[in-house]
Amino acid sequence: MNHPDFVRLKKLVEDNLEAFIPDVDDKSHTLREAMAYSLLSGGKRLRPVLLLATAELCGCDARLALPYASAVEFIHTYSLIHDDLPAMDDDELRRGKPTNHMVFGEAAAILAGDGLLTAAFEAMTRDVLLYFEDPTEIRRRFRVIHELAKAAGCQKMLAGQIADLESEGKVCSQEMLEYIYINKTAALITAAVRSGAWLGLADTKTLEALTVYGESFGLAFQIVDDLLDVRGDASITGKISGRDKHQNKSTFVAQYGEAAAEERIRELTDRSLAALASFDDKGDFLRYVAKTMMHRIM
Amino acid sequence: MNHPDFVRLKKLVEDNLEAFIPDVDDKSHTLREAMAYSLLSGGKRLRPVLLLATAELCGCDARLALPYASAVEFIHTYSLIHDDLPAMDDDELRRGKPTNHMVFGEAAAILAGDGLLTAAFEAMTRDVLLYFEDPTEIRRRFRVIHELAKAAGCQKMLAGQIADLESEGKVCSQEMLEYIYINKTAALITAAVRSGAWLGLADTKTLEALTVYGESFGLAFQIVDDLLDVRGDASITGKISGRDKHQNKSTFVAQYGEAAAEERIRELTDRSLAALASFDDKGDFLRYVAKTMMHRIM
Repeated sequence: MNHPDFVRLKKLVEDNLEAFIPDVDDKSHTLREAMAYSLLSGGKRLRPVLLLATAELCGCDARLALPYASAVEFIHTYSLIHDDLPAMDDDELRRGKPTNHMVFGEAAAILAGDGLLTAAFEAMTRDVLLYFEDPTEIRRRFRVIHELAKAAGCQKMLAGQIADLESEGKVCSQEMLEYIYINKTAALITAAVRSGAWLGLADTKTLEALTVYGESFGLAFQIVDDLLDVRGDASITGKISGRDKHQNKSTFVAQYGEAAAEERIRELTDRSLAALASFDDKGDFLRYVAKTMMHRIM
Repeated sequence: MNHPDFVRLKKLVEDNLEAFIPDVDDKSHTLREAMAYSLLSGGKRLRPVLLLATAELCGCDARLALPYASAVEFIHTYSLIHDDLPAMDDDELRRGKPTNHMVFGEAAAILAGDGLLTAAFEAMTRDVLLYFEDPTEIRRRFRVIHELAKAAGCQKMLAGQIADLESEGKVCSQEMLEYIYINKTAALITAAVRSGAWLGLADTKTLEALTVYGESFGLAFQIVDDLLDVRGDASITGKISGRDKHQNKSTFVAQYGEAAAEERIRELTDRSLAALASFDDKGDFLRYVAKTMMHRIM
């Protein structure tokens, strides 16, 4: 991801991310340290970059979208911290560094996750207060808060996570596998893309096109992740390779093989590109992101 | 708590609480079951009742306040589920029933807590969408969302929880103990009381009076909880008695004794009643709640 827009938007995210963690009292500094540790330990920043990119695409200044881009990264990071816990995936390494509970202990890691999820809503609602006199400004921000609450909730991200947990050691139908991937991974990516559109006051047609892009790209993204896990290049994933197999995870690759996974990724990438057909060169960055993702594994 | 208003408002909460858990797919029904299990396993419903009571006091129909009352109970329940986890307080019993992780396992309990916290924001933001054409209606609801996000966050409730965890086995200063109690317990109670006031478009003076009431009553409430734990009447607490001592918790009672705790509760109750001085008989229900709490231990 060395496209100049990716580099520029990622820098904008990273320069501003920490400022959205609320300041805390000395008496609870461990909580803030644990939150900041995972938030600031790298990562592609894919979701917030996509939010800023679609905001710009729809005519909203990326700087104005920062509280929402940060919120989506907070939600993503909280989900990783809780996923890595011993009771869940029991992972010791994430992005090449010890996972949150390895550093701060399980209790603090649980609270750090809770803190980041809540801080996402604090950051967004604090931003709305700045525009409290202007109904249009409130409404477009408000749409994003609702969008992210739904995507992170028990109908989407958490639904995918519980289904994923319960499918360990079982053979899943393709329908079940895609249900897990769509909810666990694609839902938040789709919400990020739609959030930028809400902030840019996009019309229904644009919102629908970006939704198809997000869903297709998000699903492809998770299958790529599976492939990288199998192929075992820890320098790319930053995780211990082969974890999925070790954890008895049902993955697309394990069930259908690498060739079928590659084929499905290609199909989904084509679908995400087709969704952008009505955009002119303003859609080039989103095209680049989808194609680059596909090229990671080919 | 057999005051007719308490009975009426508690029933209103309990009749509507489950409807605010989003419906889920069959594939993730365990998550919803785990969320509903803790949400519907009793409890005083103190926080939502206080929210509805202050809403009515300030002229807002209690029925309109239900999504916010439910949200505050969702947040409270999530915090209990995570608190009870083996990595935290490791409690096996809550309200006389097995704790969430004893029934559903740790992983599902973590996700159920996450689900309830997120569902609080889903319920509130969904309600706002119903009033999307009316800026005044959006704003007063929005204040509540911001209020609850702050109260549940790393400056308040979670700050109290991390400080509580870190103080286990240590002797705390009275300042530290009150910091823990104010944040861990009183913050959400205060936010509930303030939320009703926001919904009723209360003036600054009313909001300030209710804030003092909530802070004083909330702190008294936690010290009462400590006393009940020591005195060991599990039929009142629904928990295994003496847990605080077993867990090496720093409590007000353990450090200053029962007499000092009773004295502090009396002082705080007086302070909460004094805050209601400017209310006429419309403040009687809040007076009743504060006095009844004090009488539980005397």
